[in-house]
Amino acid sequence: MSHLDDELLTDPRDALLEIYNEEGDVSAEFLDQIDRAIEQEDSAFLREQMGNRHESEIGDVLESLDPTSRQSLVRLLGADFDLTALTEVDEAVRLDIINSLPNEQIATAISALDSDDAVYILEDLDDEEREDILAKLPFTERIRLSRSLDYPESSAGRRMQTEFVAVPPYWTVGQTIDYMREDDNLPHSFSQIFVVDPTFRLLGAVDLDQILRTKRQTKIETIMRETNHPIDAELDQEEAAQVFEQYDLLSAAVVDSNGRLVGVLTIDDVVDVIHEEADEDIKRMGGVGDEELSDNVVSAVRSRFGWLLINLGTAFLSASVIGLFDESISKMIALAVLMPIVASMGGNAGTQTMTVTVRALATRDLDIYNAARIIRREAGVGLFNGFAFAILIAIAAGLWFNNPQLGGVVAAAMVINMFVAAMAGILIPLLLQRAGADPAISSSVFVTTTTDVIGFFSFLGIATWWFNI
Amino acid sequence: MSHLDDELLTDPRDALLEIYNEEGDVSAEFLDQIDRAIEQEDSAFLREQMGNRHESEIGDVLESLDPTSRQSLVRLLGADFDLTALTEVDEAVRLDIINSLPNEQIATAISALDSDDAVYILEDLDDEEREDILAKLPFTERIRLSRSLDYPESSAGRRMQTEFVAVPPYWTVGQTIDYMREDDNLPHSFSQIFVVDPTFRLLGAVDLDQILRTKRQTKIETIMRETNHPIDAELDQEEAAQVFEQYDLLSAAVVDSNGRLVGVLTIDDVVDVIHEEADEDIKRMGGVGDEELSDNVVSAVRSRFGWLLINLGTAFLSASVIGLFDESISKMIALAVLMPIVASMGGNAGTQTMTVTVRALATRDLDIYNAARIIRREAGVGLFNGFAFAILIAIAAGLWFNNPQLGGVVAAAMVINMFVAAMAGILIPLLLQRAGADPAISSSVFVTTTTDVIGFFSFLGIATWWFNI
Repeated sequence: MSHLDDELLTDPRDALLEIYNEEGDVSAEFLDQIDRAIEQEDSAFLREQMGNRHESEIGDVLESLDPTSRQSLVRLLGADFDLTALTEVDEAVRLDIINSLPNEQIATAISALDSDDAVYILEDLDDEEREDILAKLPFTERIRLSRSLDYPESSAGRRMQTEFVAVPPYWTVGQTIDYMREDDNLPHSFSQIFVVDPTFRLLGAVDLDQILRTKRQTKIETIMRETNHPIDAELDQEEAAQVFEQYDLLSAAVVDSNGRLVGVLTIDDVVDVIHEEADEDIKRMGGVGDEELSDNVVSAVRSRFGWLLINLGTAFLSASVIGLFDESISKMIALAVLMPIVASMGGNAGTQTMTVTVRALATRDLDIYNAARIIRREAGVGLFNGFAFAILIAIAAGLWFNNPQLGGVVAAAMVINMFVAAMAGILIPLLLQRAGADPAISSSVFVTTTTDVIGFFSFLGIATWWFNI
Repeated sequence: MSHLDDELLTDPRDALLEIYNEEGDVSAEFLDQIDRAIEQEDSAFLREQMGNRHESEIGDVLESLDPTSRQSLVRLLGADFDLTALTEVDEAVRLDIINSLPNEQIATAISALDSDDAVYILEDLDDEEREDILAKLPFTERIRLSRSLDYPESSAGRRMQTEFVAVPPYWTVGQTIDYMREDDNLPHSFSQIFVVDPTFRLLGAVDLDQILRTKRQTKIETIMRETNHPIDAELDQEEAAQVFEQYDLLSAAVVDSNGRLVGVLTIDDVVDVIHEEADEDIKRMGGVGDEELSDNVVSAVRSRFGWLLINLGTAFLSASVIGLFDESISKMIALAVLMPIVASMGGNAGTQTMTVTVRALATRDLDIYNAARIIRREAGVGLFNGFAFAILIAIAAGLWFNNPQLGGVVAAAMVINMFVAAMAGILIPLLLQRAGADPAISSSVFVTTTTDVIGFFSFLGIATWWFNI
């Protein structure tokens, strides 16, 4: 789309160099020029190139620079550095930059931000630094931000913007438009205005397109929507995002426990929340914690060690099942060769079912009405795939070891393990969810342990019984 | 938030029963009442309860009903059934309902929809049925929808809404507002208006809040933004979503190859795209294709069989590595017991690294600037975890088999496999991406095959060499 910009529009940012290459990454040429300017301390060039860019572009550049150049860039930009860019970078990069700036400069920059961006930056700081910066802010600004920061982490109150337009119900459309034309303290952008009573209790909302298509003399109360899904400030951001998605909202009023309007939650923050949640689910299922790409070795080890330790424990459990059959294996080495195949197929089939289940639970598509049907379906899939792969493995193993009976034994174990895998893949996440645990975090270890243990036990057990060893 | 609705606002939908229970699922009581009304063919009750609900609520009810009741409900609602609800349900449910309705009724209902919703429903139908429905639509409506349907699947042109407000640059704010007050054909809702030349080439856009805060006599061209990231209609929806996210857009102009305005893409469609993409990534990493929860056994088997077949092949590859060492195993059965632990730890560590890498590639956080740093980090994590778990497994295995030398051998294999796992976990997705393949689909099989093969080979190989068997 960027080449369309160039063709169609006389871009006011014509002096700006192209920042992205064709893959959408920050281009090497651009980064070279910035690096050279930083080396030569050429603030004028840096201000020209970085001063008026969109915050996400500045964020991309910051993430592409090494830590020393990053701090130099921010220092050279001085007051022209748009602190909003810090909402677009990893936590590690953000803290790195914040810690390199004097608190006075941060306070000045913070007071120019929308309150939601300011809170996003402040909430990650340690208590002392945050208090120091807040103390340097003008009184009203400090109160405003403190109120947001008092709400729990990841709540709607933390993500909301405290700047909004609210009018009384008896105003006319004309009065409302005149008010907006005169007031210099409007939010940077907004898509609806709220209607409140004298105590600021929320009465309703009006979308801007509704105002524009209504005659001046019409009263606001006659065009306001009363059901506008107000969000409780204490509500978790993930649940707030679900309300936005379900009702296709662009923005929603945030109210305190007395029903008083305290802020507005906008769709752009909600898009970030949706991303974070998808990220979290993917990472949890992969056995990595709240890790970010900019984390160093120590943080990465910390986020992964626990999971591997649990896996070591369950691996010993599976190994001890093998240990039960050491005599059988010593008499028929082919068992040792084939046993990982049965376990691995079960693990993969179980992971497939579990992936579908965990995702459906996260998106609330799986509930008590369809759970029985999905369990039946998974049983069907498990049995079908079990028999199909039993035939394949029976032929392959029978030929390999020139032992048709061994083929039959491994086939029987395959059917059992694929069926167990399907059941474990759906029942374990459902039970974990019911028990109040996050199925994305813990399902995988339970499912693969089950398929390993059952895989080894069924195969080695049936072989021991059949061959009477 | 729903209890806030009740407390604060005099809900115009007071006659409506509460649809959701506390978990946010459709409540059993509500569903019972609907089911009973369907049985008694009580259209009046169903119209009252389902006629004015939000489309997503109707969609949730449809998904909770069994197929027969679902079709009866739609039949009983007749013209009061809001076809938009079909954009909120799984493809299988959607086709099920569409196929139960006569094409005349679909055509009538389609012409009342926003064009993006109409296209969403039409695009999944088979060609013949779609053409038949289109032929029954009024001319302008048919042209409008055909134009969207001519754009490639999953393109911005398919997702756009063809209803929008466009004005010439020389109009004043006052003229624009008057035009909106008079025109009855405005879109259902909109958050910006576009500025076009007489040939409909896009010149710029103005947000509604900008119009409301500007005096009537001001010309539109003086307040329009020129850089508004127009989206090429042929652009893939995923890339369009990335533009929205990067620049926090609420809506964006969609232009054809001549720069002419053909539609508008709105954030609510983009939110759906973001969800679909996250869904796809999660499912691909879990080895399930484009599967939906409503798929039956046959579709589910089809989406999973291929992946399991590949896994069967790679499992035989790993097994053949074990087969190389059958003599060593027959002389020391403990090797068969311990070998899955080494392979399993490698598999999990590799999956961790791969998860972080695949996700970072999907969100474009990983690029040529930080790849070297991340590879170094993963090497560090692999070595650290390798040595840490080597010590643990050396002690555990040494004690279990009362053989400290065996502990040493398994420890050495653990260090090697954990390091290989880390490298495979990052290099394989990077290489696949470079080769133009989707790393989310194919990384997992390559990574776990690598860790299985290296795990078995290093452990059994070192043991054979050390114990000289």
